[in-house]
Amino acid sequence: MPDPLRFLFDFISPYAYLAWTQVHALAGRVGREVEPVPVLFAAMLNANDTRGPAEIPAKRTYVFKDVLRSAGVLGLPLTPPPSHPFNPLLALRVCSLPMSQDQRRALIDRLFAETWGGGRGVTDPGLVGAIAAELGVPDAVARAGAPEAKARVRQATEEALQQGVFGVPTVLVDGELFWGYDSFGHLERFLRGEDTLDAQALQRWSDLPASASRT
Amino acid sequence: MPDPLRFLFDFISPYAYLAWTQVHALAGRVGREVEPVPVLFAAMLNANDTRGPAEIPAKRTYVFKDVLRSAGVLGLPLTPPPSHPFNPLLALRVCSLPMSQDQRRALIDRLFAETWGGGRGVTDPGLVGAIAAELGVPDAVARAGAPEAKARVRQATEEALQQGVFGVPTVLVDGELFWGYDSFGHLERFLRGEDTLDAQALQRWSDLPASASRT
Repeated sequence: MPDPLRFLFDFISPYAYLAWTQVHALAGRVGREVEPVPVLFAAMLNANDTRGPAEIPAKRTYVFKDVLRSAGVLGLPLTPPPSHPFNPLLALRVCSLPMSQDQRRALIDRLFAETWGGGRGVTDPGLVGAIAAELGVPDAVARAGAPEAKARVRQATEEALQQGVFGVPTVLVDGELFWGYDSFGHLERFLRGEDTLDAQALQRWSDLPASASRT
Repeated sequence: MPDPLRFLFDFISPYAYLAWTQVHALAGRVGREVEPVPVLFAAMLNANDTRGPAEIPAKRTYVFKDVLRSAGVLGLPLTPPPSHPFNPLLALRVCSLPMSQDQRRALIDRLFAETWGGGRGVTDPGLVGAIAAELGVPDAVARAGAPEAKARVRQATEEALQQGVFGVPTVLVDGELFWGYDSFGHLERFLRGEDTLDAQALQRWSDLPASASRT
């Protein structure tokens, strides 16, 4: 059984939405499964003491345009949620509850559609709970508030950081990491055994000294 | 006369190198010129109070792999310079001296090759000066140290920030901004009149409130 594509995501990221709509087809083309892993992007920014794209005004404007252009290329509807940034923790915790693979995929589909597909956002517990219940996941909001549910997302985020993840979406597979929807071309070549990475050149990087740095 | 592609770059960025090797062909396909603009990436990071990809250890490792994979797709040699990060100011100032369009393109070609094409780097004034002299730009190092040469790169960087630029490579053309080598697909569609940006959806972003932020 080959490794699944571990798809690390946070609803906050429109690139994660783009990638989610494409990752199953990609996995299917190379005979792999997708294992979605909800993680908290804000905690990654905190850990790296840096700012997210939506936290730099010029980059925020640009990112919106870029993601709309990529959605346009895919013919995918993309509409911002009622507010952004928003707190994604409830939705992430609900997605991390025990449930079947099919339920989890359907739940993430629905919550991404509520976020980026012209829906109502995913910060209203009533709405999130109702969607989960429709898909056969009862009492989701109450259970998402339990310590073990909170720990699940926190631990997944910490594990990701330990594995070198610094943003979302990220795909982890066969010991490699692919960040961002823009990396899907490289990811697919890698999975087809057509990786264009020059291992010798990479080795040279690892021992590279710095001769200047910002103060 | 249509607007040229204003290509903003810093030798520090391997993505700027990839983009430089492709931007003339892209411009040629859509009947445009390329106007290279040396800017200081570090000053953009300072202005936005954020960290560059090479300043976050996990991201640094990833970026090297990603850029090597993209170079592999292009069949382009990519070898890191003797040190990185390094101080690119001398090379940027030399490229901003008055000279013909052909000289500037050849000079940038040579200095990018010294940086990312297996060369000796661009921090040695003797080497940079010799390359400029070979191309018919005499006394380049001395002239690059003059106040007006320093001001030229500083002003280009400040103007870029005012126009919403936050990183390199960036192409400015017809009032639009395209960041990164990964955006070249969108850039070319834009220049062909096939932009997939949904202006209505973009409008919704501009008025979007935040409902959460990191502290």
